[in-house]
Amino acid sequence: MIDGAPDAFGSAYRLLSTAITPRPIGWISTTSTEGIDNLAPYSFCNVVAIEPPVVMFAPVGRDGDLKHTPANVEATEEFVLNVVTRDFAERMNATSVTLPPEESEFDHVGIERADSVAVEPPRVAAAKVAFECELHEWVAVGSSVAVFGEVVHAHVDESVLTDGKPDMTKLDTIGRLAGSQYATTTDRFSLDRPP
Amino acid sequence: MIDGAPDAFGSAYRLLSTAITPRPIGWISTTSTEGIDNLAPYSFCNVVAIEPPVVMFAPVGRDGDLKHTPANVEATEEFVLNVVTRDFAERMNATSVTLPPEESEFDHVGIERADSVAVEPPRVAAAKVAFECELHEWVAVGSSVAVFGEVVHAHVDESVLTDGKPDMTKLDTIGRLAGSQYATTTDRFSLDRPP
Repeated sequence: MIDGAPDAFGSAYRLLSTAITPRPIGWISTTSTEGIDNLAPYSFCNVVAIEPPVVMFAPVGRDGDLKHTPANVEATEEFVLNVVTRDFAERMNATSVTLPPEESEFDHVGIERADSVAVEPPRVAAAKVAFECELHEWVAVGSSVAVFGEVVHAHVDESVLTDGKPDMTKLDTIGRLAGSQYATTTDRFSLDRPP
Repeated sequence: MIDGAPDAFGSAYRLLSTAITPRPIGWISTTSTEGIDNLAPYSFCNVVAIEPPVVMFAPVGRDGDLKHTPANVEATEEFVLNVVTRDFAERMNATSVTLPPEESEFDHVGIERADSVAVEPPRVAAAKVAFECELHEWVAVGSSVAVFGEVVHAHVDESVLTDGKPDMTKLDTIGRLAGSQYATTTDRFSLDRPP
């Protein structure tokens, strides 16, 4: 084993983004105060609570221009977390393009919007699952922020439900690895919890 | 699409834990004020910041007895996040057993400890990566908590380094899905970021 400070292995970003894998991808849609719909993927993302149901994303980037999303959430206190399945991987990646604030990734990439029920930002119409969220807490961490959102309304495609419940075997989400790599979730195994 | 409140699809736990996948697993070691070493896996876990390097885990369980870990962090303000690769899946799962507080999962499951450098809790000796963490922030969320820890020291196995840097192609982390399911990260694909 080699040990050292977290930045002793190339960079702290490289070390953390390689080791903490695979990461779920929150494909976050927001609407600016000027009415422009933004859409960008964030893999520093997860569930943080069930009661109330709260999800988190941290808009930390190696690149600079990942700032429209948190700026929009700060201003409007709303976002939608769209789930990324294998069929959406290329379009998701395309939305990480750097655009001027007056241009929408929905239009630039050609992704169909659908109206949300409880919040202003649209969801990705064909995303298998989408969570409408209201800002729950804005947690500053150093130069960054972790955005906590309460899930107030959910959309689930019938194709991933069995008897009205979400069915993991029908949902082929993808995970983020380091660099430009992703992993499918099709190679699965099961472990029963110990009694 | 079916839409509704997040608990309208079986349960909010089921919906969130199915949709937000695959999740990285933080295998968290802590030491109680009585000196007992605890070890348990948490998949509501991710990176939240790089400057400073901060990781998060949220000890939310469907079961009740997941409380030794956050109690120990609250008391000692220290933990180690050990990374779970495929070879450790069964032992990781075995540490989710419910034990009395005076018994250590390291001993119960038979996992070798190694001393940490900057914190008291031991790391999993053979884990490919381990992050020694000091409590950065304790974020209460409803009945739950998100534990933020700053990575103060890192251990990385030579076998996952190339030219001294972490190499994703050498690290076969596993991800948590819903229920008792896990995914390997061996089926990978690459997407170059748009310019």
